[in-house]
Amino acid sequence: MKLNCDLGESYGAWQMGQDDAVMPLIDMANVACGFHAADPMVIRRTVALAAQHEVEIGAHPSYHDLAGFGRRSIAHSAEEIHALMLYQMGALDGMCRAEKTHISYVKPHGALNNDMMRDDALLRAVAEAVHDYRHDLPLMMPVSCRYREQIAIVEQAGVPVLLEAFADRAYTDEGLLVPRAQQGAVHTDTKIIVDQALSFAEKGGVFSINGRWLDLPAHSLCVHGDNESALEAVRAIREALKTPAT
Amino acid sequence: MKLNCDLGESYGAWQMGQDDAVMPLIDMANVACGFHAADPMVIRRTVALAAQHEVEIGAHPSYHDLAGFGRRSIAHSAEEIHALMLYQMGALDGMCRAEKTHISYVKPHGALNNDMMRDDALLRAVAEAVHDYRHDLPLMMPVSCRYREQIAIVEQAGVPVLLEAFADRAYTDEGLLVPRAQQGAVHTDTKIIVDQALSFAEKGGVFSINGRWLDLPAHSLCVHGDNESALEAVRAIREALKTPAT
Amino acid sequence: MKLNCDLGESYGAWQMGQDDAVMPLIDMANVACGFHAADPMVIRRTVALAAQHEVEIGAHPSYHDLAGFGRRSIAHSAEEIHALMLYQMGALDGMCRAEKTHISYVKPHGALNNDMMRDDALLRAVAEAVHDYRHDLPLMMPVSCRYREQIAIVEQAGVPVLLEAFADRAYTDEGLLVPRAQQGAVHTDTKIIVDQALSFAEKGGVFSINGRWLDLPAHSLCVHGDNESALEAVRAIREALKTPAT
Amino acid sequence: MKLNCDLGESYGAWQMGQDDAVMPLIDMANVACGFHAADPMVIRRTVALAAQHEVEIGAHPSYHDLAGFGRRSIAHSAEEIHALMLYQMGALDGMCRAEKTHISYVKPHGALNNDMMRDDALLRAVAEAVHDYRHDLPLMMPVSCRYREQIAIVEQAGVPVLLEAFADRAYTDEGLLVPRAQQGAVHTDTKIIVDQALSFAEKGGVFSINGRWLDLPAHSLCVHGDNESALEAVRAIREALKTPAT
Repeated sequence: MKLNCDLGESYGAWQMGQDDAVMPLIDMANVACGFHAADPMVIRRTVALAAQHEVEIGAHPSYHDLAGFGRRSIAHSAEEIHALMLYQMGALDGMCRAEKTHISYVKPHGALNNDMMRDDALLRAVAEAVHDYRHDLPLMMPVSCRYREQIAIVEQAGVPVLLEAFADRAYTDEGLLVPRAQQGAVHTDTKIIVDQALSFAEKGGVFSINGRWLDLPAHSLCVHGDNESALEAVRAIREALKTPAT
Repeated sequence: MKLNCDLGESYGAWQMGQDDAVMPLIDMANVACGFHAADPMVIRRTVALAAQHEVEIGAHPSYHDLAGFGRRSIAHSAEEIHALMLYQMGALDGMCRAEKTHISYVKPHGALNNDMMRDDALLRAVAEAVHDYRHDLPLMMPVSCRYREQIAIVEQAGVPVLLEAFADRAYTDEGLLVPRAQQGAVHTDTKIIVDQALSFAEKGGVFSINGRWLDLPAHSLCVHGDNESALEAVRAIREALKTPAT
Repeated sequence: MKLNCDLGESYGAWQMGQDDAVMPLIDMANVACGFHAADPMVIRRTVALAAQHEVEIGAHPSYHDLAGFGRRSIAHSAEEIHALMLYQMGALDGMCRAEKTHISYVKPHGALNNDMMRDDALLRAVAEAVHDYRHDLPLMMPVSCRYREQIAIVEQAGVPVLLEAFADRAYTDEGLLVPRAQQGAVHTDTKIIVDQALSFAEKGGVFSINGRWLDLPAHSLCVHGDNESALEAVRAIREALKTPAT
Repeated sequence: MKLNCDLGESYGAWQMGQDDAVMPLIDMANVACGFHAADPMVIRRTVALAAQHEVEIGAHPSYHDLAGFGRRSIAHSAEEIHALMLYQMGALDGMCRAEKTHISYVKPHGALNNDMMRDDALLRAVAEAVHDYRHDLPLMMPVSCRYREQIAIVEQAGVPVLLEAFADRAYTDEGLLVPRAQQGAVHTDTKIIVDQALSFAEKGGVFSINGRWLDLPAHSLCVHGDNESALEAVRAIREALKTPAT
């Protein structure tokens, strides 16, 4: 069970996250590609940091919306999605070349990620872009109860899938994240977070917020590194999983 | 003697140039990378068009300035130049992957090109970025009387050089382009343009505006395709050089 | 019956439209504010041209999306709409000050316009922004069969309404524009265009594409100036309405 | 002696500064206008905060360069400077309207500020833009030993001048700020900062880093609020000046 984290989310003079602190704790870094965060200098530093810690680098492409941090849905044609993803994967990979490395997977960011999980045509467009970039490049997407259908769509485009789950978020009966606005949506107790991580790692699923068991196989857990308590949780998960960071 | 042309300079709803008309006439397409022109959809179309006509694709990176079309100097550190070039080369190359092709050379655009010709430290930063992207990728730069020094700087970074010359512009005694504001700077007579093209191709140089002979060896001529008379000149040069477009 | 036209839609080196040709023919110029088109230099020139021809200047604010020309829906909160509209109205009005003039009305652009016509909460947010900018500033919106309800929403925010109609577009039975993809959506015959303009001006409505009469009172007709046949239609409408450009 | 501070320098999801903490301590807020920082939502909040604390709002226009935070020189024509300043002053003033207030002065940001202090033609272009926006609007600029000449240039454009000085920076013999890279450039000892503030307030000048007395009359001191020690210094200056925040 690998740990992935969104990184490289600073921009110019603006800092976000604690990349230096979290990079040693994770296995996979989802690196912003310039459309929601990360000017070229930020990407350069993030890629160098990932290479130094031998962390896999994933492209984290987004709608083009700096002011909205990629969190606002923007209506796009399949052709536009294809083009904006190729552009961002290539840009990040260009930076990787200077570190003698390359991207290892792709995980769409924010509203693009949410939208593709709700719209199979968009998921297909995303998968085709990943395939046309490099035929063996995996697409990372959140696992939900629809994961078999969604994997089928992605694999039909010739793209391997990595499923991710969240240790610090409650799940609905449909295997979706409980919306943040709702009571109990976010776990803050480290013990609960660690238990949920172990449940994903050892039992291949979790109980929903209503107590229903969900089979949700995951290759990776998405963790956060933007504050001290988040870092604490990552360390506790790492310890519980008894696997050193790759 | 190959012909190169700046292409892919549209952006979103805004059209620029006549890429469809000029692509069949040239050997090398300098494709905008999104910082002075070309959103991802424009790049996608331009790369497909180049691939269809078997035209070599060159990255045409720029300062980040859409409103200024990359024609305004922006003060940058060497690190910033390195990062913005890697980003743009990668982004374009990502688009090339979807067409089973790749970039073949790099030619900086506009103010970045002008500035590197005047500032050896900037030229070095540009060359190092090209090298760090791909060690055998050539840098295209305008030939002037300083070409030996400038080639030395670029080659010291391990980067091969392509020199370009202009058939439709008068040259100063220093082998620089006569500024457009000056009388006689731009040739409009097709015969003069063709003669200058032949002079570069067959004699390895031209006479300056003051009648002084200049040794200016060039691998490629930069042509323009943005209006009918420009296209006419390209056709005439192509005919005179008696070489079919590659 | 006044004629309005979208203008100032160039950006940096990219030209769009024929503002010089169409400005003398119209009464109201909807001027882009920098978010979908128009860098500050373009706005400056457009405002000067409007002032010279004594054409009313309207703010034409948009979602922030240059590559999409403001034609893609972007999900926004009411607070974001409020802020982005104030910003753009102010920016354009700032340019007007240098010409000793000011904006006279507001007409949202592209996807923002479409979206507010379908979403009353968005229409309310738009109206409140207009009101908070200047209490007597009118909002221009397309007339449809829902115009009474929509006027009520806008007037509740304290904002006067200007209704616009199209002489060159067929209308559905609901008083909406027939989608462009559909047969018969766009009139190209000048006589039909002029007749529709006169129908709006003299009879306060038009027949729908299915032959049903629609009461659609309009203060202004939206015309286009981006090609010669469009300009021809504007001249014919102007002539038929027998009113000189204000 | 008023205190001014650069504020509203967040952008979208990125926070910068501690506007809530510093606003109650100052008299004049230099508010970013969207070109180097501050999306419309940030401007909206900053203006509301300033209005609540009855702090004067100044436009803080910049070159258009988010990734560079307006700190990189960009070559511009006088016409471009004129247009980009009108745009930004208007945009900010539009936001002020919603708070029933308006901008009270203009202070260029970053590289634009530095460049205008070195280039009288640029200073003139800046002053003319301020004048064309509103004839009685003052321009704030740093005081140096050239202040009489520079005031003359600005006043010739019909614009009143506000001079600002720095309590926490050492001055050269020319009355310029000692470059940050140099030893002793930045004062960190609160007592020294307060003494320098009092020197400007009561004696109309300071001793240079070489011990030479400089007559440098200032209307306002520029303070910073981005960390706790900066805030401490502001409180100490405020106390020493024995004037409550306006």
